[in-house]
Amino acid sequence: MSRLKLGMVGGGQGAFIGAVHRMAARLDGEWDLVAGALSSDPERALASSRALGLDDARSYSSFSAMAEAEAARPDGIDAVAIVTPNHVHADVAIAFLSIGIHVICDKPLAATEAQAQDIAQAVKASGKCFVLTHNYTGYPLIRHARELVKSGALGDIRVVQVEYAQDWLAEEVSNKQADWRTDPSKSGAGGCVGDIGTHAYNLASFVTGLKATSLSADLSTFVDGRRLDDNAQVMLRFEGGAKGMLWSSQVAVGNENALKLRVYGSKGGIEWAQENPNVMSFTRLGEPKQLLTRGGPGTTAEDTRIPPGHPEGYLEAFGTIYSDAALFIRAHDRDARDTQGSLLPDIHDGLAGMAFVTACVDSSSKDAAWVSL
Amino acid sequence: MSRLKLGMVGGGQGAFIGAVHRMAARLDGEWDLVAGALSSDPERALASSRALGLDDARSYSSFSAMAEAEAARPDGIDAVAIVTPNHVHADVAIAFLSIGIHVICDKPLAATEAQAQDIAQAVKASGKCFVLTHNYTGYPLIRHARELVKSGALGDIRVVQVEYAQDWLAEEVSNKQADWRTDPSKSGAGGCVGDIGTHAYNLASFVTGLKATSLSADLSTFVDGRRLDDNAQVMLRFEGGAKGMLWSSQVAVGNENALKLRVYGSKGGIEWAQENPNVMSFTRLGEPKQLLTRGGPGTTAEDTRIPPGHPEGYLEAFGTIYSDAALFIRAHDRDARDTQGSLLPDIHDGLAGMAFVTACVDSSSKDAAWVSL
Amino acid sequence: MSRLKLGMVGGGQGAFIGAVHRMAARLDGEWDLVAGALSSDPERALASSRALGLDDARSYSSFSAMAEAEAARPDGIDAVAIVTPNHVHADVAIAFLSIGIHVICDKPLAATEAQAQDIAQAVKASGKCFVLTHNYTGYPLIRHARELVKSGALGDIRVVQVEYAQDWLAEEVSNKQADWRTDPSKSGAGGCVGDIGTHAYNLASFVTGLKATSLSADLSTFVDGRRLDDNAQVMLRFEGGAKGMLWSSQVAVGNENALKLRVYGSKGGIEWAQENPNVMSFTRLGEPKQLLTRGGPGTTAEDTRIPPGHPEGYLEAFGTIYSDAALFIRAHDRDARDTQGSLLPDIHDGLAGMAFVTACVDSSSKDAAWVSL
Amino acid sequence: MSRLKLGMVGGGQGAFIGAVHRMAARLDGEWDLVAGALSSDPERALASSRALGLDDARSYSSFSAMAEAEAARPDGIDAVAIVTPNHVHADVAIAFLSIGIHVICDKPLAATEAQAQDIAQAVKASGKCFVLTHNYTGYPLIRHARELVKSGALGDIRVVQVEYAQDWLAEEVSNKQADWRTDPSKSGAGGCVGDIGTHAYNLASFVTGLKATSLSADLSTFVDGRRLDDNAQVMLRFEGGAKGMLWSSQVAVGNENALKLRVYGSKGGIEWAQENPNVMSFTRLGEPKQLLTRGGPGTTAEDTRIPPGHPEGYLEAFGTIYSDAALFIRAHDRDARDTQGSLLPDIHDGLAGMAFVTACVDSSSKDAAWVSL
Repeated sequence: MSRLKLGMVGGGQGAFIGAVHRMAARLDGEWDLVAGALSSDPERALASSRALGLDDARSYSSFSAMAEAEAARPDGIDAVAIVTPNHVHADVAIAFLSIGIHVICDKPLAATEAQAQDIAQAVKASGKCFVLTHNYTGYPLIRHARELVKSGALGDIRVVQVEYAQDWLAEEVSNKQADWRTDPSKSGAGGCVGDIGTHAYNLASFVTGLKATSLSADLSTFVDGRRLDDNAQVMLRFEGGAKGMLWSSQVAVGNENALKLRVYGSKGGIEWAQENPNVMSFTRLGEPKQLLTRGGPGTTAEDTRIPPGHPEGYLEAFGTIYSDAALFIRAHDRDARDTQGSLLPDIHDGLAGMAFVTACVDSSSKDAAWVSL
Repeated sequence: MSRLKLGMVGGGQGAFIGAVHRMAARLDGEWDLVAGALSSDPERALASSRALGLDDARSYSSFSAMAEAEAARPDGIDAVAIVTPNHVHADVAIAFLSIGIHVICDKPLAATEAQAQDIAQAVKASGKCFVLTHNYTGYPLIRHARELVKSGALGDIRVVQVEYAQDWLAEEVSNKQADWRTDPSKSGAGGCVGDIGTHAYNLASFVTGLKATSLSADLSTFVDGRRLDDNAQVMLRFEGGAKGMLWSSQVAVGNENALKLRVYGSKGGIEWAQENPNVMSFTRLGEPKQLLTRGGPGTTAEDTRIPPGHPEGYLEAFGTIYSDAALFIRAHDRDARDTQGSLLPDIHDGLAGMAFVTACVDSSSKDAAWVSL
Repeated sequence: MSRLKLGMVGGGQGAFIGAVHRMAARLDGEWDLVAGALSSDPERALASSRALGLDDARSYSSFSAMAEAEAARPDGIDAVAIVTPNHVHADVAIAFLSIGIHVICDKPLAATEAQAQDIAQAVKASGKCFVLTHNYTGYPLIRHARELVKSGALGDIRVVQVEYAQDWLAEEVSNKQADWRTDPSKSGAGGCVGDIGTHAYNLASFVTGLKATSLSADLSTFVDGRRLDDNAQVMLRFEGGAKGMLWSSQVAVGNENALKLRVYGSKGGIEWAQENPNVMSFTRLGEPKQLLTRGGPGTTAEDTRIPPGHPEGYLEAFGTIYSDAALFIRAHDRDARDTQGSLLPDIHDGLAGMAFVTACVDSSSKDAAWVSL
Repeated sequence: MSRLKLGMVGGGQGAFIGAVHRMAARLDGEWDLVAGALSSDPERALASSRALGLDDARSYSSFSAMAEAEAARPDGIDAVAIVTPNHVHADVAIAFLSIGIHVICDKPLAATEAQAQDIAQAVKASGKCFVLTHNYTGYPLIRHARELVKSGALGDIRVVQVEYAQDWLAEEVSNKQADWRTDPSKSGAGGCVGDIGTHAYNLASFVTGLKATSLSADLSTFVDGRRLDDNAQVMLRFEGGAKGMLWSSQVAVGNENALKLRVYGSKGGIEWAQENPNVMSFTRLGEPKQLLTRGGPGTTAEDTRIPPGHPEGYLEAFGTIYSDAALFIRAHDRDARDTQGSLLPDIHDGLAGMAFVTACVDSSSKDAAWVSL
């Protein structure tokens, strides 16, 4: 089976997440990167494209030129990966969707609710696939956790504790990554809560299958002069009565990418941490705690590539999103539409994430009053 | 030096915390238990007292009889340990304090704010020592953490995450321990938040040296028919701008006594968990995480009994409270009053804990509105 | 029930293990320390004894004087704890046993095989109780591990990996503890292998119930000028075909008291580490790993004092040896002899430990040739 | 820069390590798989090749046909990956080397010493690159450990404890992976010791930079009817006086791929475990233990792809071997020969591994007598 053809917008030299998308796309051999508008600076775009071995003819200096040209080629791209800062997502996504090209977009969905709605409309109008890279949902044990919840092994969900702690912004930092993330015009109204809080929120929803109905948020900015929050503390209420706490921080010294999820129900509890993602604890009420391993006893080997005890990591989880996207897009292109059973985060997750950020900012501005979602 | 003489109210057969107090008191050889009103049931009181090898003459069937008799004896007790359910603390404490006997009292201070104030008044009027057994403050690494904060090694405190999770009340349970703890008339207005939330709150304050100025609490009761909360989620604001989250739960399946404290400042962070209390991580911003061990490199051996790598536990930390109490009481009896430098939790911590419970219940009843402390 | 009366030989000011024995003896309220020959230096003996609150009349300047005097008193001691350097054990033990006083003796049994045999003869001749404080056998999960093996839950034992690593002798060290341990005339022919290797060996035997039939040892002395081994690497062959490795080291930088045991059989495996002794992993072949906790689901609460999740440690395990010794001695004194079911390490374990040290030294001197046990 | 062209021998449907090599080769975009003799069964070879999207013209049914054809093509492969069972390595390697094609070969080098020597001769005669995929040397923290040792941060190396424990062969197992690994005609004289013991041995040598001078090995076969060892216990003596223990097992119930390395020197110690490879402890004598993270403070970000806290795993380490191989081969092809500074395991490591297996089998057959290396 021939590989799908991928284009990329953003991700030129000096960027972080673009390289991640490229490795993820390569890992399972489902995609070939063949075109790019890798930077808004034409020189950097070309240099980046050459470093990646792309054909000069498919190195574009604007995403709109790229959309038009690729749509016109018989061997044009099947999908575009959008890996720009948040405020650019909407224009790019709409350009490609409207011209009939599938979109794989980094999170959060956009910088503003209005942009998010525009994208949603374009998705609907185009009938094209839209995948949002909430990559942590690609971890096999996270998918297993979701199955455990679904199967009733945890009983009624009562408590959801989720957190994502980092420390890279504990001081004033100036570099390409930090600059746009702390700039409201590029990042949107949420700082830490948008950048990583949305991951935590998405993960909790993905595993529990529950929607939060309201939240109360206390956002803080601890570093002088910073214009967006760098620490978010949120209480959540879920449909069905479960209660949650979400903490995201970029100033928690000693934490690198400490995304952790704990879910407790009437019959069982699970605990998982991203930094060592190949193990998850699972306790049935009154029984000893079990350590489930990725692909080990009591779990399926689905979505895993190598035997238990050989660690898979962040790139493999991300790669699963890309491989699932390939499956999804092939099915879509073959059958017009077949989203049955896909675990891929989509436009609805993107809108939910935007609503979460908006509600957090709103609640925090009202002294952490409860805000509906 | 001869040992101090201890009496005990409560803690008869079938009780839990009384036996803990007795082991803690014995550990360092500073105390002899010589008298008791171990149960309100005279037969059980006598049987319990005999099982402990007490002189029948000093086995009392009421605490008031005990207070009078012991105060009258030339070899009467130096202090009484109160290990009854919460609603009895006040009467007992006042009886002993007013007759001139020092008090060591289990937490929380009382079942109601009014009782708490009565105790506080009795402490003040009597001039006697009053120690509240927030035993977790006796862990050497917790005391070291406090020193680290005080020394400025963490910089300005920004974020305080504290939690105490258990699962023993995940279902309806009926036994001596569960019954009074879930009975508002004995436990007070707080269930889980009073029983273990106060420990978490006290620990955070002890280590950071910060007072919370307000809180927003969402209390839940997940088990049908239970009359008090079994899960508490609280957001905290501290003087100086630090923000905190506190979670206490008795329904978090897979957790036994998972008390955890994490404190992050502008220069460093610490993380500690009670279930493996002989290690604490400490990270200076930009440096590798260090694992400090109890009595190991970078810590003092103060308040430790055995070399690093030989684990001390809950009873040793509790024993430190008793040994410090002995020191404190000897100093008091010698010098009229010498509380300089004592780390012992006292009446002020007791009142702070009561205020915390009251505020949580109040806030929760107002849809988690902020309540001042 | 009145407490048993304990005497102590050794353990004066500056000593380590004497204080441990005293705390262990106090913990459960089964023993009162009433007499001591705490130092061979009379002044230090008296000062030490007063610091402990002993009656001056029962502070002896020689163990032989103590044995005679205590045997003659109507309220004489029930047992003596021997906490001297190894080379003194035999004389003291024989003195007390022959005069009819039970002995609790620190490990290893003696400095030489000849001394060990003399003690064994005295035990036999006297009919008195002899307890060797291989304290790690007092850990509840170690006892549970023994039960698991006995129950067949692990199947046929195949592999036993045991180790005890420290780093306190990684450099030349001079203090009371180090000096006698590195002096062949006091410690015996084994250095590290005698001091902690015997603990590891005893633990492996205790849990598996297997005797080693032969061993091959490579002892090393890494610190210049040291006269005894500070690192021991040993291969073991057990009856029934199991194979083992034992490593003990006092120069393994970064290890405090890292005693670890792993046992694998045809049906299951267990793993336990002393530094966090309240958890043990247990895996049945083909099933998820379980984390058993002390007193938690799947284990008994026997030999535990406090609920799971409240850590017990080294002193509690040591205390269990003392409490079991009290039970054992009471039963013996009542029924002439009742050792049925006692888990206490005894003279046979002491002889086995000596044989282990002798074999290791012998094997190592023969280029690690196999030596029978 | 255009990608290097890779061929593969072995690795058809049902194989394990072939897929790993392919993912590793893809990850960093340095290689394109363009040709294969994926199975000795022509039908399976073709089916496998089609599933991978190879051109039918470059799907060969024999490795010799492939070597000739590819050498003759102007766009022939730059290197061949050999992922067959051990006994086939030599013939394949020699065929490709002699015709001028670089070789990347799975470990161990061969099934017999004679085969190994033949390969070595072919490497020498051909002047071509030969890379042995001791993939664990690709873990960034393992490379950092090597640097630490080299820098003198650990002082003189004293003790090396290495182990690789699995449990997948704890019972009789029959499948493609198990069958050849337990068949002496395919695997060679070593079972577990050859399959994973060589990894452990290589890792210890790689990190310490030390060669073992002699060893004493006790190999066991615990599963009835198995023809090769499934458990190996080995004592090692290194040049310079360091002592080591190596344990490899395929019957250690509860272990998946528990490769662990601990190295202790006069000034420091390190501890690392493959199952959570993004953290390594490092202790300087007398200082707190540090937890170094991949790319985190105190380490370089070399050979890492993503920020610390985002776990990389087995495939990334394997990918680093492939990317380094690409660098190495490009340099070789450009400059005739430039191996300066390469960390890649090569023919010498392969021979050392074979010598290790031979010595273990030899020693074990002589009751674990010391055998020189």
